[in-house]
Amino acid sequence: MKIICGQKELLKGIQIASKAVTPKSSDPNMECIVIDTKNNDIRLVANNMELGIETIISGEIIENNSVDRIELTANLFQNIIKSLPDTNITIEYNSGSKATISDSSDRKFEINVTSADEFPFPTKLNKSNPIEISQLALKTAIGQTSFAASKNGNGDMMTGESFKIVAPSTLRLSALNGHRIAIRNVTLDKEYENSSIIIPAKSMDDIASILSTDDDKKVSVYIGANSAMFEFDDTTIISRLIEGKYFNVEQMLSDDYETHIIVDKQSIASCIQRTKLVVSDSEKRPVILNVTDGNVLITMNGSKGKFEENLEIEKNGKDIEIGFNPDYLISTFNAITDEKVDMYFINSKAPCFIKDANEVYIYLILPININVN
Amino acid sequence: MKIICGQKELLKGIQIASKAVTPKSSDPNMECIVIDTKNNDIRLVANNMELGIETIISGEIIENNSVDRIELTANLFQNIIKSLPDTNITIEYNSGSKATISDSSDRKFEINVTSADEFPFPTKLNKSNPIEISQLALKTAIGQTSFAASKNGNGDMMTGESFKIVAPSTLRLSALNGHRIAIRNVTLDKEYENSSIIIPAKSMDDIASILSTDDDKKVSVYIGANSAMFEFDDTTIISRLIEGKYFNVEQMLSDDYETHIIVDKQSIASCIQRTKLVVSDSEKRPVILNVTDGNVLITMNGSKGKFEENLEIEKNGKDIEIGFNPDYLISTFNAITDEKVDMYFINSKAPCFIKDANEVYIYLILPININVN
Repeated sequence: MKIICGQKELLKGIQIASKAVTPKSSDPNMECIVIDTKNNDIRLVANNMELGIETIISGEIIENNSVDRIELTANLFQNIIKSLPDTNITIEYNSGSKATISDSSDRKFEINVTSADEFPFPTKLNKSNPIEISQLALKTAIGQTSFAASKNGNGDMMTGESFKIVAPSTLRLSALNGHRIAIRNVTLDKEYENSSIIIPAKSMDDIASILSTDDDKKVSVYIGANSAMFEFDDTTIISRLIEGKYFNVEQMLSDDYETHIIVDKQSIASCIQRTKLVVSDSEKRPVILNVTDGNVLITMNGSKGKFEENLEIEKNGKDIEIGFNPDYLISTFNAITDEKVDMYFINSKAPCFIKDANEVYIYLILPININVN
Repeated sequence: MKIICGQKELLKGIQIASKAVTPKSSDPNMECIVIDTKNNDIRLVANNMELGIETIISGEIIENNSVDRIELTANLFQNIIKSLPDTNITIEYNSGSKATISDSSDRKFEINVTSADEFPFPTKLNKSNPIEISQLALKTAIGQTSFAASKNGNGDMMTGESFKIVAPSTLRLSALNGHRIAIRNVTLDKEYENSSIIIPAKSMDDIASILSTDDDKKVSVYIGANSAMFEFDDTTIISRLIEGKYFNVEQMLSDDYETHIIVDKQSIASCIQRTKLVVSDSEKRPVILNVTDGNVLITMNGSKGKFEENLEIEKNGKDIEIGFNPDYLISTFNAITDEKVDMYFINSKAPCFIKDANEVYIYLILPININVN
């Protein structure tokens, strides 16, 4: 194999494929990227069994007769390409265990490669009935929901994100962890039949990090029995699905409320951030919101001290005093781009809803029981 | 005590004083900053026994009759001030164990303070016969030498930096670690008598980080028996000295050479950086320079692979093949701002000198023995 690619193009491809690399794995294949010239294009492939990625990069195949697939340690490969200037880079492998990577200015690396004979190339799905979504819309909606999924518990459904067609042209992403729910509805250009899958939230984050910020570009999503395939630009991503039926999120939602407030998002987000200064890392103390006419008094009482701040609000309904895990409020406010947010409360023991008028987003947060005098 | 200061001014003062704070110390005083209004100005003071810092900040003392010194945890104090917008900040202490920090927008922190009765205020030196140096020149020269000092060994002379008047108007800073020496000569505006002290290199780095980049500003250095005092702007820093007589650095220098090369600094620095990619962290492999007419071939042979690169040079004298610890070359090149560097070699077992024509800087690096075939 002998190929020539531009440094930037090669680095971009490695960075995409690396999302499916597990740097320290008991299976060396998972630490690697395969360069595959079998189909007369240059493909970079990685697969850590959760996520498989294949991305085609532009470049020239000078020779691919003897060996058309080689496997390199992803981390070393990336560091080497990153260390080189933006010129043409030649990768050459003849036989044995060494390949050379050289640039046009007489710099030459010789590194170990392994045969890709044992590499678990990801299994692609048949390309039928794709769901088409704007790359930007999907990227944004993932970023605004996946944080709510549980971080621990391998294969646990709470570590997944629900990807569900809830109406002919509405995709709903939901994630939850037992104390909160995050929901985003994405409007689709075409109509689709109902379908519902659960994708590991970690995979969704990796996919989001690769998706373009260009609103005109689409991603096609194909749904299989055990995996979903995302196809966009020159990249194909195959993610494992979490088996089972997701929680009935709709049943947990409610339109009832006793108190409705409208508050400046940036002000309340930075206020809640400030409350954390008086709490040590190991401490779990609630931030307390004391809602009265036109004002919310936000307080925290931690081992390092006390904090209080008053914020102006618009308020309808009853006064309420309610406590929350400050981290849940902060991550929710960070996921909202609106300048003002609407918060709905029922009582100090019932979930609080943060949602917009059209329910493009719905966030539910359970309160923490506080001892009200 | 009740004081009012601007947020930026207060934060800047805390950041300066924090250089003399040891965040996790068995002595709580070392984790703290004292606010001292005794002298009718607002001083922030910290002292970790290696370094003592006092900085005066502008602001208004509203009341200092009852208590004029309070002690706060530096880290919490800094985080709180950093979290507040740039408005006026009021700090108030009456009695008991709590002080309040509030801003003009109704945000209020209440945090623990302790009495400063037991605080080890740094002992200032008599202000006589200061050595006056440009702040920028001292800041730069420290940054270009202190890296060569040994990082380990408490109180060991190799962890210190020599601060020496070697000629009436020349200050020489030297640091070494047994494998290399870094020397910078700083020209002074006035003439001084010979003197020589050893300051912990860590303290020198902390002092450098506070010094201004403004060339017109001076720092006055006072030398005592056990400490040195640096006075500049509104800040006074007292550093412990390392006792003893420093190494005779001058004796280690030599003007002899068999090979002299001139090489582009940026090219060789990034080339040596690249050689490290094929070496794992725990491996100690030399980078090999093979100098011939007009060319240096730079090679590395590591467990992850091999690297080679040719650089164009100007060369006088013999060919030479010589090996070095790549980190020593990299940190030396990073300390030089010249576009071209001059390297002088005697043989493959003798030190290499990197120095400019006027010997404003002299770097000595011992080679690593390599098996030349």
